[in-house]
Amino acid sequence: MALGEFDLIAKYFSRPAQQAVLGIGDDCALLQPRAGMLWAVSSDMLVEGRHFLSTVRPERLGHKALAVNLSDLAACGAQPVAFTLALALPKVDEVFLAGLAQGLFDLAQQHGIELVGGDTTAGPLNICITVFGEVPPGQALRRDGARPGDQLWVSHALGGGIGDARLALEVFRGHAALPGDQFEQLRAAMEQPQPRVALGLALRGVASAAIDLSDGLVGDLGHVLQRSGVGAVVHSAALPMSAVLAAQPLARQLECSLAGGDDYELLFTAPAGHADAVRAAAAQAGVGVCCIGQIDATPGLRLLDAQGAALPWTPRGFDHFAA
Amino acid sequence: MALGEFDLIAKYFSRPAQQAVLGIGDDCALLQPRAGMLWAVSSDMLVEGRHFLSTVRPERLGHKALAVNLSDLAACGAQPVAFTLALALPKVDEVFLAGLAQGLFDLAQQHGIELVGGDTTAGPLNICITVFGEVPPGQALRRDGARPGDQLWVSHALGGGIGDARLALEVFRGHAALPGDQFEQLRAAMEQPQPRVALGLALRGVASAAIDLSDGLVGDLGHVLQRSGVGAVVHSAALPMSAVLAAQPLARQLECSLAGGDDYELLFTAPAGHADAVRAAAAQAGVGVCCIGQIDATPGLRLLDAQGAALPWTPRGFDHFAA
Repeated sequence: MALGEFDLIAKYFSRPAQQAVLGIGDDCALLQPRAGMLWAVSSDMLVEGRHFLSTVRPERLGHKALAVNLSDLAACGAQPVAFTLALALPKVDEVFLAGLAQGLFDLAQQHGIELVGGDTTAGPLNICITVFGEVPPGQALRRDGARPGDQLWVSHALGGGIGDARLALEVFRGHAALPGDQFEQLRAAMEQPQPRVALGLALRGVASAAIDLSDGLVGDLGHVLQRSGVGAVVHSAALPMSAVLAAQPLARQLECSLAGGDDYELLFTAPAGHADAVRAAAAQAGVGVCCIGQIDATPGLRLLDAQGAALPWTPRGFDHFAA
Repeated sequence: MALGEFDLIAKYFSRPAQQAVLGIGDDCALLQPRAGMLWAVSSDMLVEGRHFLSTVRPERLGHKALAVNLSDLAACGAQPVAFTLALALPKVDEVFLAGLAQGLFDLAQQHGIELVGGDTTAGPLNICITVFGEVPPGQALRRDGARPGDQLWVSHALGGGIGDARLALEVFRGHAALPGDQFEQLRAAMEQPQPRVALGLALRGVASAAIDLSDGLVGDLGHVLQRSGVGAVVHSAALPMSAVLAAQPLARQLECSLAGGDDYELLFTAPAGHADAVRAAAAQAGVGVCCIGQIDATPGLRLLDAQGAALPWTPRGFDHFAA
């Protein structure tokens, strides 16, 4: 039996309003911002074949759709508050919807945030989430705050690194092969990224600039350098990598960690004197951090190998419209 | 020459931040809500073939994508402030993008609001806008405030009515035929709806409940009745109609005006003693309003014909997942 649009919303996505003055079911949701706080807003759209594969379990897809948005709040040092969900579905598939809602609400609950509104329609599968968070004035982490002399840091899962999601994609594409257990580990990194919200909050007043890694380290770092009007040196040997990725040929290691995309770790800068505070923030958040380079005044990015020589290879960031 | 994602954003969608503390180009936008105001949020997703036809001019599509969202703020009595745009595009078509941006920013400027962030990706054409507005606590128009004895009103363009968008769609579908000038008039109603923001603001403290007409009058009224726990009588002869629709056979008039969809007029209730205030609000907003019925305590909707007899026909609201 086909469910109509309004039945769908009620069955899978309506929950009683928690903090919202008015939640799902009216023309608008009504939220009461806390006095004096800035409102941080971000919106990400996920499309099948671009941001996820048709083989992904719906629970993981629900998780990821919210996680990539929370990752933007994390990069801003904002405390998540609420989100909206707009969903285009090719057909009403209740197993899919139940799983999607499960993954979405599980992650929402972990972060104490609520779904306050949105839209559903028929159409090619598309998930668009907009998240709202709060940050005190002057405390947001921005892309334009990096200064010469700052250290460049990247977060990672304890025992993990960056580039795993890209390596998983290469396996899906048939460009690499891995034993099943290793593949499952990397697949989880790709399909269930953990937004570094706690780290972003702990880095308020510690980091000078931050961005989340969604399009690959080199491309994302480029945004920070451009907006801050600075350059950087990155020591490729310092990049955090999982044991699985570290066992790959060097060219693949570099491709995955420098131009991988879908990492959803935080890349951030901090004055050298804040190094202990950075480590304390990471410990508080339960994640690892690596110092991978320095900010300087020379425009551009210089990638160095383990011997300090220039890497002869310049990866490109992931671009959704590149061939 | 293909433009990359970041070039696209810069070329067509980046404008200097106006009121926003931080606009496009960071992980999040930062907004400063005015002290004491509630934040109204709504999100609508537009899909080709469902919400617009491939023949629509990009300027009109840009207008409509924002207009349907502003219409939600209008129905809430909220003052628009800002919006985000997430866009999936099958290919980089600069003529399309330039037109889309033009229509979008023209309407945004009319309402004094700014684009503060969003996302672009490759994928089947999809436009998802999330709007933010402000409303003082306790003054939002909601769906649950209708009371027995209230009058039921609908807004309309001066000289126009409801149902024109649906009649235009019937012509597109080949189910009806019209002279070219009449078709163009109705096509504009379908492709360039005017959100009733000024009316929504003027109805604060005057209307008891409101909703915007997006899925057809009968279906949308049903939401108000359900959430308010009331019933209604609607006099079909009182429905405002354009001369073009009024010249159609009665069955089509009723189908278009009662179950049409895409009207983006406000349907609202107000105590009978507020009738003069309703008319004053409409005059102030430069739109027409018609009293089309009354709210009562008997659950359900009773449609009456010009003689006061029950209409033998029960239209259904538009449902994006209905066959």
